[in-house]
Amino acid sequence: MFTPGGIIALTTDFQADSFYVAEMKVAAHQIARDAMIVDVTHAIPPQDVKQASWTLLRALEAFPEGTVHVCVVDPGVGTQRKILAAIIHGQAVIGPDNGLFDVIASRYHVAAAIELNNEVYFGPRRSHTFHGRDIMVPVAAHLVRGIPLESLGDAVDPPSVPEEAKARIFAQRKGNEIHGQFIYADSFGNYVTNIFADDIPEDWDRWQLRIESDSFSADGIVSTYGEREPGTPVALMGSSGQLECAVVQGNAAQKYGIEAGNAVKIVRVNT
Amino acid sequence: MFTPGGIIALTTDFQADSFYVAEMKVAAHQIARDAMIVDVTHAIPPQDVKQASWTLLRALEAFPEGTVHVCVVDPGVGTQRKILAAIIHGQAVIGPDNGLFDVIASRYHVAAAIELNNEVYFGPRRSHTFHGRDIMVPVAAHLVRGIPLESLGDAVDPPSVPEEAKARIFAQRKGNEIHGQFIYADSFGNYVTNIFADDIPEDWDRWQLRIESDSFSADGIVSTYGEREPGTPVALMGSSGQLECAVVQGNAAQKYGIEAGNAVKIVRVNT
Amino acid sequence: MFTPGGIIALTTDFQADSFYVAEMKVAAHQIARDAMIVDVTHAIPPQDVKQASWTLLRALEAFPEGTVHVCVVDPGVGTQRKILAAIIHGQAVIGPDNGLFDVIASRYHVAAAIELNNEVYFGPRRSHTFHGRDIMVPVAAHLVRGIPLESLGDAVDPPSVPEEAKARIFAQRKGNEIHGQFIYADSFGNYVTNIFADDIPEDWDRWQLRIESDSFSADGIVSTYGEREPGTPVALMGSSGQLECAVVQGNAAQKYGIEAGNAVKIVRVNT
Repeated sequence: MFTPGGIIALTTDFQADSFYVAEMKVAAHQIARDAMIVDVTHAIPPQDVKQASWTLLRALEAFPEGTVHVCVVDPGVGTQRKILAAIIHGQAVIGPDNGLFDVIASRYHVAAAIELNNEVYFGPRRSHTFHGRDIMVPVAAHLVRGIPLESLGDAVDPPSVPEEAKARIFAQRKGNEIHGQFIYADSFGNYVTNIFADDIPEDWDRWQLRIESDSFSADGIVSTYGEREPGTPVALMGSSGQLECAVVQGNAAQKYGIEAGNAVKIVRVNT
Repeated sequence: MFTPGGIIALTTDFQADSFYVAEMKVAAHQIARDAMIVDVTHAIPPQDVKQASWTLLRALEAFPEGTVHVCVVDPGVGTQRKILAAIIHGQAVIGPDNGLFDVIASRYHVAAAIELNNEVYFGPRRSHTFHGRDIMVPVAAHLVRGIPLESLGDAVDPPSVPEEAKARIFAQRKGNEIHGQFIYADSFGNYVTNIFADDIPEDWDRWQLRIESDSFSADGIVSTYGEREPGTPVALMGSSGQLECAVVQGNAAQKYGIEAGNAVKIVRVNT
Repeated sequence: MFTPGGIIALTTDFQADSFYVAEMKVAAHQIARDAMIVDVTHAIPPQDVKQASWTLLRALEAFPEGTVHVCVVDPGVGTQRKILAAIIHGQAVIGPDNGLFDVIASRYHVAAAIELNNEVYFGPRRSHTFHGRDIMVPVAAHLVRGIPLESLGDAVDPPSVPEEAKARIFAQRKGNEIHGQFIYADSFGNYVTNIFADDIPEDWDRWQLRIESDSFSADGIVSTYGEREPGTPVALMGSSGQLECAVVQGNAAQKYGIEAGNAVKIVRVNT
């Protein structure tokens, strides 16, 4: 059902260069010496489960089948929240059941979910505040080495999201408009939205489109930054397949004061 | 006496994403191609030997026997200060003899120390300003490949710390109080202290405790952040086994203006 | 003509901890599983082709023969600019033909250059905005696996720099002065210049020298920081073989407000 591929991918809110990341890598190496450990990012804002859930979606689309993802954005560490391993899109995702799975479980089928409660596969160190090092990474390393998913704990209902909640996660079409929101900026200040290429009706490429938020607006969807002059606001389908708002050779997040959660829409202009 | 385990662990003040780190990794790879190189952290504040010495303690406790640590916080590079390799807690630690060894040599027995002066094991590049790349990492890589410690240079007296200096490094009990200090903040702003779990008498769990500094105070020692409401100041035994001062889902370092070196104490409240 | 050595070295303006770096590493791993991937730096300021071109020079001098460098500082991504693979100093350098090659092609002979246009060696993902992931890294990984350079596309004229442009890149001697400029600061605030050790006549070590810019001045060229008291401005030949301006145990870039491009000169003082 799940065949590990040798990669452990780490997504956390520990920030670049954190000692905690080193401790997780050592914990993995102690169990699965040959695993390739890849840092997805450690730049999730502290405790920002929502941004982490979107980053996991992007990670699932970038990594190959068999990858074991460990996501440690865990404000409830040490409390009763469960830690899950779920099989999604051919990959394993290990993380606390605190909303982290919302975006990926809304977009993909969850093939199986296990609550990690078999202490045999936990690590040798035990703290109340760092389950990434003590539980999640050791379990991930055992999974990479071929321990079957079912051995890691008890099967539980897969994480699921009610339809009305999905409507708040994803963009919605309303007549001649598609209503979405900004979800995170990359390091260039390009702001990624929750509007996917397939949210836009195919025949809209015959119409003039305008991309609008409170502070940002752009005419049309360009293919790449170089189609406009430096300083021009542009919207384009980014490398993740989601609409991005940018400034050519500039920083859109700063210039337009965009923040995560702000509304943005595509308007089909009738001319 | 020392059996290398295949890991080279790097601790520096070069800051994330520094070109100097890449140069050290290439230097290691040229000699010990199969070594696993782990970044402990490169976020030590520039020239902050004291914080580096505490980070080395944490690293020694996190990494397995046989690890070769290289610590490059070296304001005196190119001057007469010695570079040492010391065997501590089953691991080798290579770094300048400038105070870096103070904390680990106070807490653990130093099994042997060598001054690195056998140029046979230095690297091909020679600068006056980057002995991490030119001396420490090449020697570490030779050690990982099985060159005996004794071949690396002359045996010297192990780094040692006078008793009165130890009293300034570690927390001290004074009657119903334990007097310590803040040593470094993690990326969440949780401030780690020099008060260890075993500094606190076992029977104190029957008493009410208060954790106090100039600006921060908390009642009792909790097990994990989630035991209190967001925004509450808490003290807890962190994942390193040292007392930490934190704010639930907040940043204690910023909120309370805590700085490294500030005093903090545990008070046993007689009620 | 080019024998790959197993290392892929990444230089980008994505900044530390960027998701884009992870995507490139996964793309490499999918094709060349055993390659060692080294981060040179991801801290090039956004779209700063000039700083990237100097960083490539430093990388060429630090990495071994056979390294495949990928440099993604690519403001023109998706436009008509070519992507090249060039063989320089025994290493392969892959990047957009936007000025990135200026410094290395001025200092070293370019043995061959290919325009990357054989889509057989591109990756499975195709975007208009991320050719690092979709083209450059997959091609680099095929090169590491032994695909011959000539198979990657059409041979083109090697990147070259007119003599008068070289005079603007490198320092120039004018009588008793050597005129250069500041090119980048390291994380300590030490500012590296474009004045190389071999720009300085050998017999000048018999003279008194002064290093001067608008805001910074230092007497003589020291061997290492520790030769002067903390706080003193010093000039020295850095670990890259280029003149650096620093403050002992301080941050010269901040203290003297130095910026990339500012003029700096060495004056031979006649006394």
